[in-house]
Order: sequence, then structure tokens, then C-alpha cells
Amino acid sequence: MNASQTKAVSWIGDAETGYLQLIDQTLLPREFKLLEIKTVEQAWEAIKALRVRGAPAIGVSAAFAYVIGARQKLADQKVFDRSIAKEVSDYLRTSRPTAVNLFWALDRMDERMNRLPGDCGTSRALMQLLEEAEAIRNEDEAMCVAIGKHGVELMPRKGSVLTHCNTGALATADYGTALSVIFHAHSAGKAIHVYVDETRPLLQGSRLTAWELMQRNVSCTLICDNMAGFLMKQGRISAAIVGADRITANGDTANKIGTYSVAALCSLHKIPFYVAAPSSTFDLSLATGDQIPIEERAASEITNAFGKPTAPENVPVYNPAFDVTPGSLVTAFVTEKGILKPPYDISLRALAR
Amino acid sequence: MNASQTKAVSWIGDAETGYLQLIDQTLLPREFKLLEIKTVEQAWEAIKALRVRGAPAIGVSAAFAYVIGARQKLADQKVFDRSIAKEVSDYLRTSRPTAVNLFWALDRMDERMNRLPGDCGTSRALMQLLEEAEAIRNEDEAMCVAIGKHGVELMPRKGSVLTHCNTGALATADYGTALSVIFHAHSAGKAIHVYVDETRPLLQGSRLTAWELMQRNVSCTLICDNMAGFLMKQGRISAAIVGADRITANGDTANKIGTYSVAALCSLHKIPFYVAAPSSTFDLSLATGDQIPIEERAASEITNAFGKPTAPENVPVYNPAFDVTPGSLVTAFVTEKGILKPPYDISLRALAR
Repeated sequence: MNASQTKAVSWIGDAETGYLQLIDQTLLPREFKLLEIKTVEQAWEAIKALRVRGAPAIGVSAAFAYVIGARQKLADQKVFDRSIAKEVSDYLRTSRPTAVNLFWALDRMDERMNRLPGDCGTSRALMQLLEEAEAIRNEDEAMCVAIGKHGVELMPRKGSVLTHCNTGALATADYGTALSVIFHAHSAGKAIHVYVDETRPLLQGSRLTAWELMQRNVSCTLICDNMAGFLMKQGRISAAIVGADRITANGDTANKIGTYSVAALCSLHKIPFYVAAPSSTFDLSLATGDQIPIEERAASEITNAFGKPTAPENVPVYNPAFDVTPGSLVTAFVTEKGILKPPYDISLRALAR
Repeated sequence: MNASQTKAVSWIGDAETGYLQLIDQTLLPREFKLLEIKTVEQAWEAIKALRVRGAPAIGVSAAFAYVIGARQKLADQKVFDRSIAKEVSDYLRTSRPTAVNLFWALDRMDERMNRLPGDCGTSRALMQLLEEAEAIRNEDEAMCVAIGKHGVELMPRKGSVLTHCNTGALATADYGTALSVIFHAHSAGKAIHVYVDETRPLLQGSRLTAWELMQRNVSCTLICDNMAGFLMKQGRISAAIVGADRITANGDTANKIGTYSVAALCSLHKIPFYVAAPSSTFDLSLATGDQIPIEERAASEITNAFGKPTAPENVPVYNPAFDVTPGSLVTAFVTEKGILKPPYDISLRALAR
């Protein structure tokens, strides 16, 4: 099994007999296991249990799961119509009710279902639904490739790049966002070394990003988040590149907790700080990051993260899921449409056109 | 058992029948267990296995262990002279050969042994050795108290203070250095809340500092190291205070990895950054921090720290034990002799006098 050739989410076979294949991300980095998802219940469990994670990868998985669900209903009930398809879609929505991409992908599958001609045979209906799911997958991959290619010019010809969290192929249809830029720069022959923030509390950097880089033979070094500043002081970081959860009209960027410290330390050390994200991440209806509510997560992620309690019982904890980096600290955004530079109040508006 | 009243290192009883009592710090924060150390071998094991840690606490423990070792030799061999005492001291030195305070305390015990009058009875010799060990302990405690009292004026009357690593009573005879300032400010009625960096990789902040603060009823919140910057951006940090491993003539400060990022982020947010350390930490023979070699520690501290592998096998890791913060980022030093402010090339020289 060549893990580097395997995508996080794939469809194997045809619409009538095929299945959804997922890398079980809960077992990474020490075990590489492929799941063969042949029922919608298995798909639901895989999304719920974070066997697949990353907003785009969840959306693509749900779209394929929709096809499986439709097929099951058809086998059980011999009929298959919009209201039965809706049951499948509503069921899948309960797997991770806060995942926006899950809802977006299922809405799109429902719409495709609604557009099927009334006299469409069931076998043909399944094929068309699979086509739609594959389109969702392919569009995401194309977007990731475009982000990667646009970003290459920003990467040093030779040097070390810092990244935070996981923004790679595991989180998307392929390549990722910030990691796509790194992968494409590497393929283009740039001699890039990557410093990987482990990314407390959930260690997406050490568990997933380091794994992806090693799979694709990109040279990397794992560090604790609190070491990045010292590397910068030693002149060992040429650039930083991260992903984004949400970007407001002035360039303020919500992303995994710890991103702000990276950006602030980059600014102090005059190191370029880049954000790679698809244009769908930009929410120009919000003027500034102050309007983004900060989700706080369970204390146990900090006090009990590694299977062993490492803090006093009942210690008060602050555990924001993400932070907001002011647009003024972002050197440039890399999107599938190209690179955006300050002033962001102008360059970001161009995205919406 | 009132943990808040118990010191990390104590001598219980008299020289002839007493014993060394240690808090087993490897069990904290979830279990509070006192060890009764009655043989020099037990003491050796406790130091080796980090049941007692923190440079001053190790020194004090070794001094008491010396008394126990002398007593054992006396019981076994019926004689007790300088060369036998030297065997005890040499044995204890092997418990943690890189701990400077261990050597310093044992040298001092050896010297006291050498100064004993030749006709000194064995019972009287043991008493005098215990006196010396207690003097080492008391001097360390007095120094910690002096640091704490001097630092009170720097603490906000009401506000949140960030700290990194463990610099408290567990690491010293009592009170600690940076935490001593916080404890004394708290006792003086200042309404201080403490944000505790968990301090990756070894989590001294979550395991020990949070525990100490809770024991002494100082209000605190545990965070991951990468959250401190975001708290500063939100205006939630009034000051930061840390300890030091070594300070050079220009104020450059080697301390636990992550300290530099705290200092740099403080500087960016115009937050005062204080270093609390006894004058013995200042090494004026070094002009700048560039002369301090950076010890790198085992990769497993990052990849496998909590009993569970969290990174790919064989991932390259950078794991410096400490970093160096330029003196220019230090707002003031707090020592047992008082507060030192810039310019440090002048104020630090005054310390040596």
C-alpha cells in the first residue's frame, strides 16, 4: 500500500457496486488503514468519529455517502424518490451538525436529486448522483491545485517554511491549501524544508501534517508551538504559511489557535506570513474579525489530551478553538483565483466579482 | 494532609533518627504522596527519577541525603571520616551529573565535613552536618522570600499575569522565584489572576505550576503555550514573569524553551516582561547569550510525551531545552538583592559587588 498515492476520500468502483474508501485518520500517524464504507451507517460513524476530518474532505465524503444511502434505500424499499433521498441526506446531516461543508455538499446532492427527470431509471439516477459527488470531489481538488500553483512564487527557492495545524491532502480532496502550496513548490524544484508546529491541543501538526510531508518526501522537522519564535530569532524561518477558517472583508483571519502568535512573531522578525484559502472562506459580509465569535472547547483537550491526566483536577482552562489574526499581519492571501495583496479592502472585494 | 503547608523538601526529626521527606513530584498533579527517605540509595533514586526537581530543591535534598549517607556509613563501618564522607558525596553526585546545584551543595557539605574538629564525636558530627544542610535550605528559602518581596511592587494591583514553566515552591526550598513574586503579591492583597502556560514538551506549567497556585488559592487559568499571544491581543495580560537558568552580563536570559516567544509577544503588545532569579543565576563572565550553548533533548519528549505516540515514527524533531531572550526584551530583573532595570551593562555589574 503506497500511502502517498492514496487520497483521504475516494470512490472505488461504479455506482451500483462501488464503495467509499477513507483513510482512517484517527489511527494516523502510526497506523495507515483504509476503510471500505459500504453502508450509509458506516459513513455516518466515520464522520462522527472524525475518521475523516477537514471541512472539504467531510463534504466530499458525505456526497459519496449519499450515493451509498440512496442505493441502500433502493435495495430495501424498491422505490427511490426525492423524499426517500431526503431521509438519507437528513440522516447524514446529524453526523456532524456544525460542519458547514457537510451541509453544503448534502444540499448540492439534494438539488441534483431534485433535478433528475421523473422518468429517470434508478440505475441511471445512482449514476448521476455519483457523477455529482465526483464533481464535488474534482472541483475541490482543482481548487487545491490552483491554490498550490498560485502560491509557488511566494515560496523561497531554498529555505525553511513554518506551518501550523493540518491544511493538507487529508483535509481536502487532495493537496490541501497551505500544504498544497508547499507540495507544489517542492514539485517545482524549490528546496523547501518545513518546520511543523505540533499544534496543541489536538496535535494536528504532529499527527497529520508531519505524516503527510513524510509521505510525499518533503523534508520536515517537528517542533512544539513555543519553539517557532526561537527559530525565527535564529534566522531559520524564511516564511510562514497557514490555512484559514474564515476571512473578513479587511483580511482579518480566523484560524486554528496559535496562528495569531505565529503571525505576530513573523511580523516582529520581518518574515512574510501567508494565508492560503479558497475564495469560499472569505466572508465579506463581516467587516472585521471582531465580529467572529470565538468557540471555546472542552478543558479536557488540554488537561487530558494524551490518554493521561496532565493537570490538576478542576483546574480552570481557557481553550479557544481558534484565534483571529489581523489582516495587517498577513503579507498575502493565496486563493484559487490568484494572490491577493494589501490593501485588502480593495483586493478582497475583487474576489467577489 | 495539607499539601499547601508541605514543602517539597523537609527534614523530619533529629540528626540521629530523622529522615528526608520529599513530595513525589512524578505523581503530581493527580496524586500527593510524601516519600520518607531513610537511606542514601533512596535519595539517589529520588533525584535520578526526578521525584525531586528544580535546581535549588535538588541541592537541598542532596545536602540532607549527605547526612543520611554519613549516618549509614557510621552504622555499617563504625568509623566516619573525611574519606568515607567523600564516598557518600561522590555517590550522590552520580544521581544527576548535570545538576550544578547538586554539586554546589555537596561541595559545601564536604567542606563542612573538612572543617569538623578531629576530635569531634560522631553524634556531634552528624548534628553539625545536619546544621549545614539546614543552613543551605534556610538560605535558599530566605532568598526566595527576598525575591518575592522585592517583586511585589512590579505586580499589578489587579490584573492577570502570565507565567511559563515551574518556578515555584516545588523547585526550591519554598516559594520559588517568579512564583514567589506572585505568592507575595497575592499575600499582600493584590488581586492577581495567573495564566499558566502548560509549557511543552514536559508540561511543568500544567503539572506543577497550576497545582501550586491552586494549593495556595491563587486564581489561575491553564492555557496551551500558543494561546498566550491571543490573550495579549485581547488585552487580558497585564504582565509576564518567568524564572531563569542563566543570565549574561548584558541581560540575555536563558530559560525554558518558549520564554523567548513570551518575551517577544510581550514586547509587541507593550506588556512588561519580568525575570525573577537569584543573583547566583547571573554569569557576568559571559558577555552575551550567544555564548550559551543550547542543549537539545530527546525527540521522544515531543513525539511520545504522554505514554502515547503522537507523531510519525522517525520524524525529525528539534527539541531545544531552553531559549535565549535578549536583555532588551526584559523590563526588569527581580533578585534577592532588589530590582535591576536597564541599562543592564551597568545595573548587573552592581550585583557582583
